[in-house]
Amino acid sequence: MNRHVIVREIERADHAVVDRLGEIGTASVHEAQGRVGFLGVELTPIQQGTKIAGSAVTVLSHPGDNIMIHAAVEVCRPGDVLVVAYTAPSTHGGFGDLLATSLMAHGVRGLVNDAGVRDTADLREMGFPVWSRHVGIQGAVKSTPGSVNVPVSIGGVIIEPGDVICADDDGVVVVPRRQAEWALEQSEARLAKEAGTRAKLEAGELGVDFYGLRDQLIEMGVEYVDRLD
Amino acid sequence: MNRHVIVREIERADHAVVDRLGEIGTASVHEAQGRVGFLGVELTPIQQGTKIAGSAVTVLSHPGDNIMIHAAVEVCRPGDVLVVAYTAPSTHGGFGDLLATSLMAHGVRGLVNDAGVRDTADLREMGFPVWSRHVGIQGAVKSTPGSVNVPVSIGGVIIEPGDVICADDDGVVVVPRRQAEWALEQSEARLAKEAGTRAKLEAGELGVDFYGLRDQLIEMGVEYVDRLD
Amino acid sequence: MNRHVIVREIERADHAVVDRLGEIGTASVHEAQGRVGFLGVELTPIQQGTKIAGSAVTVLSHPGDNIMIHAAVEVCRPGDVLVVAYTAPSTHGGFGDLLATSLMAHGVRGLVNDAGVRDTADLREMGFPVWSRHVGIQGAVKSTPGSVNVPVSIGGVIIEPGDVICADDDGVVVVPRRQAEWALEQSEARLAKEAGTRAKLEAGELGVDFYGLRDQLIEMGVEYVDRLD
Amino acid sequence: MNRHVIVREIERADHAVVDRLGEIGTASVHEAQGRVGFLGVELTPIQQGTKIAGSAVTVLSHPGDNIMIHAAVEVCRPGDVLVVAYTAPSTHGGFGDLLATSLMAHGVRGLVNDAGVRDTADLREMGFPVWSRHVGIQGAVKSTPGSVNVPVSIGGVIIEPGDVICADDDGVVVVPRRQAEWALEQSEARLAKEAGTRAKLEAGELGVDFYGLRDQLIEMGVEYVDRLD
Amino acid sequence: MNRHVIVREIERADHAVVDRLGEIGTASVHEAQGRVGFLGVELTPIQQGTKIAGSAVTVLSHPGDNIMIHAAVEVCRPGDVLVVAYTAPSTHGGFGDLLATSLMAHGVRGLVNDAGVRDTADLREMGFPVWSRHVGIQGAVKSTPGSVNVPVSIGGVIIEPGDVICADDDGVVVVPRRQAEWALEQSEARLAKEAGTRAKLEAGELGVDFYGLRDQLIEMGVEYVDRLD
Amino acid sequence: MNRHVIVREIERADHAVVDRLGEIGTASVHEAQGRVGFLGVELTPIQQGTKIAGSAVTVLSHPGDNIMIHAAVEVCRPGDVLVVAYTAPSTHGGFGDLLATSLMAHGVRGLVNDAGVRDTADLREMGFPVWSRHVGIQGAVKSTPGSVNVPVSIGGVIIEPGDVICADDDGVVVVPRRQAEWALEQSEARLAKEAGTRAKLEAGELGVDFYGLRDQLIEMGVEYVDRLD
Repeated sequence: MNRHVIVREIERADHAVVDRLGEIGTASVHEAQGRVGFLGVELTPIQQGTKIAGSAVTVLSHPGDNIMIHAAVEVCRPGDVLVVAYTAPSTHGGFGDLLATSLMAHGVRGLVNDAGVRDTADLREMGFPVWSRHVGIQGAVKSTPGSVNVPVSIGGVIIEPGDVICADDDGVVVVPRRQAEWALEQSEARLAKEAGTRAKLEAGELGVDFYGLRDQLIEMGVEYVDRLD
Repeated sequence: MNRHVIVREIERADHAVVDRLGEIGTASVHEAQGRVGFLGVELTPIQQGTKIAGSAVTVLSHPGDNIMIHAAVEVCRPGDVLVVAYTAPSTHGGFGDLLATSLMAHGVRGLVNDAGVRDTADLREMGFPVWSRHVGIQGAVKSTPGSVNVPVSIGGVIIEPGDVICADDDGVVVVPRRQAEWALEQSEARLAKEAGTRAKLEAGELGVDFYGLRDQLIEMGVEYVDRLD
Repeated sequence: MNRHVIVREIERADHAVVDRLGEIGTASVHEAQGRVGFLGVELTPIQQGTKIAGSAVTVLSHPGDNIMIHAAVEVCRPGDVLVVAYTAPSTHGGFGDLLATSLMAHGVRGLVNDAGVRDTADLREMGFPVWSRHVGIQGAVKSTPGSVNVPVSIGGVIIEPGDVICADDDGVVVVPRRQAEWALEQSEARLAKEAGTRAKLEAGELGVDFYGLRDQLIEMGVEYVDRLD
Repeated sequence: MNRHVIVREIERADHAVVDRLGEIGTASVHEAQGRVGFLGVELTPIQQGTKIAGSAVTVLSHPGDNIMIHAAVEVCRPGDVLVVAYTAPSTHGGFGDLLATSLMAHGVRGLVNDAGVRDTADLREMGFPVWSRHVGIQGAVKSTPGSVNVPVSIGGVIIEPGDVICADDDGVVVVPRRQAEWALEQSEARLAKEAGTRAKLEAGELGVDFYGLRDQLIEMGVEYVDRLD
Repeated sequence: MNRHVIVREIERADHAVVDRLGEIGTASVHEAQGRVGFLGVELTPIQQGTKIAGSAVTVLSHPGDNIMIHAAVEVCRPGDVLVVAYTAPSTHGGFGDLLATSLMAHGVRGLVNDAGVRDTADLREMGFPVWSRHVGIQGAVKSTPGSVNVPVSIGGVIIEPGDVICADDDGVVVVPRRQAEWALEQSEARLAKEAGTRAKLEAGELGVDFYGLRDQLIEMGVEYVDRLD
Repeated sequence: MNRHVIVREIERADHAVVDRLGEIGTASVHEAQGRVGFLGVELTPIQQGTKIAGSAVTVLSHPGDNIMIHAAVEVCRPGDVLVVAYTAPSTHGGFGDLLATSLMAHGVRGLVNDAGVRDTADLREMGFPVWSRHVGIQGAVKSTPGSVNVPVSIGGVIIEPGDVICADDDGVVVVPRRQAEWALEQSEARLAKEAGTRAKLEAGELGVDFYGLRDQLIEMGVEYVDRLD
């Protein structure tokens, strides 16, 4: 019961699919897969201008403890993103440049951490991207067990090991592994459609016109008036 | 009762006055007009180093819905700033690069949004400045009516359509339209005065001396001591 | 009782020690001195890439009032960091480019402010580093007494005048004056040790191995499994 | 410009209408008038089980200052509710049992305060109801001017002097003065309708049936399944 | 992909086990099952002195929409607790006395709601217990699809349909359905042990003595001193 | 350096003075001693209608650890209040009915805890009063050292062992031990004066009159007008 496990092998989505999802951007992927999977506005990047995708290796950790992050390194594969959730809220910065060095050495593409990180200047310099809830230096001990590669949840979203993590300046989105290919198709279709919309908007056309919103507005009881009395 | 309206025509402050207010900076304008009109510390820019002013076109929107933003585009004039308030708090990112494209095509100078925005990397690249409460990608539907160019309030400040919006790295300040010229005069007088103060301070003179604070401090019961026992 | 004082002279740590602490970085100093003294995740820098240390001149101020900051300038010495605490929470931005000009003229290295600052674009351009709780422009009056160089507390940490303030992208750490030399030794020892660890991690070695965590994990009841059933 | 005023006379809604609105409850009034006017989830009662309505006398005050609350007392009439907004956020408890005594002596029915209150045990004992953002004892000075009976805004809602304030355990709702009678009619119609609905629901009938939601759900793509595979 | 479902049948834990868990209290159950499953400090009761347990019927809802709560009523069985999670944060109060009437008519024991509730005075009078994130009256529409009886997550905890929900004045704890019996045994063993401890502590015995902490403290470097110098 | 200590003996204020301070109420004591010492609006009581004062026994604890609370019990004397601060923010509820039983057995009057408490229903029934930041059940371990009876700080206020803690429905105020008698005198003088003010206000007299605020308002530029144009 409640056993703590480190799961060595997980299924991952097709690498090419993951990589193409990484080029798209979180907002489009999120829309395309039905507006689910966003980890929330409080999980922010420590860097600007980075856009990645990777397969989730998940960690469920005690707050203020990083032993399970250490334990997770050897089950990571090149192209993975480490996702760390906690059993209670915490501002501890139990992840810094040393752990990033270790993860980079194993090909990990980035970190999503529902607590704090430190050494942020170094992490930016090293080019190891991080999305976290806090920047903080209160360190971590290595004394309480947890799990690696079990389902976790952050910001109301359930993340299964092997799910695809997309992250950029807007935040983090999770694509369920089995939906990755479908989500990619949806996203690419959406992007194609948006290109046409963008061209019209650049030309000064109005969304109320080509989306047909004007009738809808009037039907909903919105009145056009010249001036407010 | 409670009718939803889209008001096509609004009064705006003189363009030259607006432009000069835009060069001054929010802190000085705010001080100059009597320390009112600041939308609060939670409305932050997504970019750094941008300073603008423009005439407010206001939107009162349902949270998680952007139909009224679409409706607002055609009443915007070059030099305007779109200001979007909501009937309930929301983290939704119902504004992204497409709406920005549309607003730029109509000469809008920026967005003040009391919810979330997305596509922030694109917005920065496009040079469309935004001040918002959140960065988030949870998108918006187009199904609930609202109003365009009615009085709204954000952060305890009432914003009338046509008021002047000043925004920079410190946040957003609203100058009532009828006060714009007066506020500009006050601001310029203040800046002129500050230049003299700055020169003195750079030379090492003390504010306690030239503001005459030393006597005031003693009168208020503050004691100068050499060491704390 | 409850007298307000401005203390002119304080003990400071050795300048060379302070300067060397400034090169180390807050996370390492914090770890080295036993994981105490971090002012918390809400005190953030307005700039990126700056790392300083200095001796604390402390101010205890009424919220929304900056008379005591003015009063503090003349007791500052080159190499100091001004630390401003308040008797109640506040978002007021009672510190801007003028006060920064004055402090720079007296050799002050930076500001730690438990409220708001304004003129942030100017402060970045001037190169005057600030760590604060808010960015805001609601200004300050000069009408309520407070104290300079008394013990204050921010984020649950007590700061005595003359304590060493270390600050960088990760936040702010306080080193008690009498511990400065010891903290420096501990920090340097820690850095030396970390260099070795980093080399191993870069080579792909695993922390679970060289920290000996594998046995500890199993002893704590963590099970290694190949797949999750 | 930005002149501070104390407005002695304001229009009020019909007393009988106000009193009947006070019996209805905020949730129903809010729904009935089109889901606008709620001051937000952070403005909470210090007592339980009290339901009031009254005409708004508004105060716009400097944070941590209560001189304008004192100034407002004499313009209050029996049946009014005092509504205090601030030019900046504050936790100050500038309202306690003495001001409540004064307001009660003038027939004021309660306080809506966008900052802190103190003496809460006394206020509950006196039977003076309060809705506030904080409970706190940091007192107030009497030194900065403000206004009485000007439009103010709290929680994104604009409140005009004379508007009807409804408040109960769920929070505070504002009914525009000119809409009071209409809002009352809508509310009473709604209550009548809800009584029928309640009887059906008590009898075990399903909302999905009598609201006709089942078809709508299926049309929106929701699938009924016996078990989740 | 991302299909919305209403699952009619779920497995539940043994009723007697659920009822006995309901008598124990959340803190003890949480400890007993290994300190997992607490939904966090922000999910608070609207009433005082109520302690319940029940089987989770889960709802995943769009914010500000309660159509799926209506849809969930008919799949509830006597003894259930309705658990509502949202795809984005919300303060909307989409649950009030009508829905409570409906749930009570179907034997539901209470509500756990990760947004707002209204009609709290009525709910307390009706004796329908609620744990929620907010009290608020901003109502809900019935226009966006969601799911009933799918896994959801609140406060970082994953809740499967049929899991046991324990809730009291301290908050809400989830016991995985398959662990219910084991968790009950652990809880009862814990309570028995605590009774002995309580007797000792009442008699004035010290935890440092009978837990053997004194040696541990000294070993960890804690020094006993008579006075602080 | 940074040694952890348990200090057995501390100076306390005169018992009669402490008891009389306990009868006065936090708001009056706070005002009387110059508006300092309030621990902030986030430290709230779990019970209603309790007013206490006692001598502070202080604990500085690791978050999520309660070994130092256990260690503190034996240094408490009848009439003390236990004050627990943490080295990092935490929602952990490491204090419940067992520790309360132990403290009651040693005559401790209450707890001030800058984290979470649990078993709140039991604590209310036992009559052991608590002021805390959170209510939560995430328990505590006993593995990290801390200190007893060292200076700590909560909410920006420094608390020395032996200081007088006053707490009631409005929150918690600290009176420095050496100022206790003076603070009592000030408080009693204030209460006497307030009694006269209260009588006048009950009789309908206006504060603007007997405080002489009317002239001050006009002098500050406030204008009395009959109606707002």
